[in-house]
Amino acid sequence: MITHTKRSVPLKTCVDPQIRYIQRLHAREERNRTGLLYIEGMRFVAQAVQHQARIEHLVVCRELLTHPYAQRLVQQQKQRGIPLIEVSCQVMERLSQVEDSQGLGAVVRQRWQRLASIKPRGELCWVMVETIRSPGNLGTILRASDAVGGAGLVLLGESTDPYDPRTVRATMGALFSQYFVRTSVEELKHWPRRSQYMLVGTSPGAAHDYQEIQYRQPTILLMGEERKGLPAELQALCDIMVRIPMVGESDSLNVAMATSVMLYEVFNQQRKRRENFPVQS
Amino acid sequence: MITHTKRSVPLKTCVDPQIRYIQRLHAREERNRTGLLYIEGMRFVAQAVQHQARIEHLVVCRELLTHPYAQRLVQQQKQRGIPLIEVSCQVMERLSQVEDSQGLGAVVRQRWQRLASIKPRGELCWVMVETIRSPGNLGTILRASDAVGGAGLVLLGESTDPYDPRTVRATMGALFSQYFVRTSVEELKHWPRRSQYMLVGTSPGAAHDYQEIQYRQPTILLMGEERKGLPAELQALCDIMVRIPMVGESDSLNVAMATSVMLYEVFNQQRKRRENFPVQS
Repeated sequence: MITHTKRSVPLKTCVDPQIRYIQRLHAREERNRTGLLYIEGMRFVAQAVQHQARIEHLVVCRELLTHPYAQRLVQQQKQRGIPLIEVSCQVMERLSQVEDSQGLGAVVRQRWQRLASIKPRGELCWVMVETIRSPGNLGTILRASDAVGGAGLVLLGESTDPYDPRTVRATMGALFSQYFVRTSVEELKHWPRRSQYMLVGTSPGAAHDYQEIQYRQPTILLMGEERKGLPAELQALCDIMVRIPMVGESDSLNVAMATSVMLYEVFNQQRKRRENFPVQS
Repeated sequence: MITHTKRSVPLKTCVDPQIRYIQRLHAREERNRTGLLYIEGMRFVAQAVQHQARIEHLVVCRELLTHPYAQRLVQQQKQRGIPLIEVSCQVMERLSQVEDSQGLGAVVRQRWQRLASIKPRGELCWVMVETIRSPGNLGTILRASDAVGGAGLVLLGESTDPYDPRTVRATMGALFSQYFVRTSVEELKHWPRRSQYMLVGTSPGAAHDYQEIQYRQPTILLMGEERKGLPAELQALCDIMVRIPMVGESDSLNVAMATSVMLYEVFNQQRKRRENFPVQS
């Protein structure tokens, strides 16, 4: 498992064009321009494969690739025609932003959907955000969404990059089970399918307790920014505004915590309906 | 609100002994040795005052202390006999680990309780942890505990410091509403009052769903470490082990998320009993 980060070695030290192509993906502009991202470690590559993410290149350091599962993974992908870039330990080290890459990385195509193409399905729940300042918080939100079988993330505007390496690491590999949509407030306003979803906003001052509401329809949880909460323009688009009650000093919860608590409420209601689950009171 | 961090200026640049005494508190050894910590910003100092934390010194930069509330706070504390250290902007900058200290800091005494002195009271819930690697996660847990009116944190062993400046920042000021206990697994084993609490451990493989259980007694939530979960020795001490269900790829939740979900379950059960709250099913 990979959580420790380290300093990356400066770009200029590496002249091989294939290596530079990967190193450049550490920068958001290059990820945006190419629609690619670089992932590291057995867990992340395995999940990309499992979810049929489009792998452009596998990056392999034979010396460090000691885990039999990782070796099999590389063998299988090679047989499927995925191009391999074999690198030395030093180069792997230069490419890597984590302490232990396990000798395996991959350049993977980002997966985006258009708002127009998403369809209400069952009780599937989306998380919608405008700005999440902390990449770690965003990764944690994706991990929570994965845990409850959520659909993914709808991003309003350009400010947040779910493929930031710090976000990717915080997902612990849950990235590839999630769908991503980038849209705008304007497009959301005129989205013909909006009425088929229950758009739920959260605010500490909202009239409804989050546990009063039945989340039966496909739900979109619209979570506010860490500092400023949900702007009035977005609150006006919501079908309902709910509050997570608090009795302490804080005037707000961390956005990843608030999202986790909301996602588990939607999930718990769903599973109680399905499983005739005993309810505590 | 203070969240951005910055690099601290090296210690040797500052010779004033009062300033060095504060700078040294950035290091855990010095915090341990003195039992003090340094906090920054109006919100944190106000909450220390409100919760009657023992303030050893207020640190004030008059030029930066522009907020009327902060000015009143300093005036009141001065009248109560709290010693002031007045510093220049440059010195404030040197002391500060945040972008905007608002011209106000304080050296505050840490507050610890002994396990033997805590008493079961109502349905008050404690969070118990052995190791939390991420200071941000620990701060987020404290913020969640504050939000549900939790008692505080019981730390098993020496590895985790709740007064780490990164943890303190992540609490967003909720630090001072929380109590801290440091104990050991041995002491916990022989704690006479243990039977008066419901000691609830969490593990992804536990037999009971976390929503099956009634958390009526004063509860202690024993949360496992991010990577390894709860060791067998600690599981054996628990009255019950519960799992937070997951349907996705991840084999675990982030520990701060898991703690938030557990704390809200205990809190929701309590408030439903108190308020005859409508339960969704």
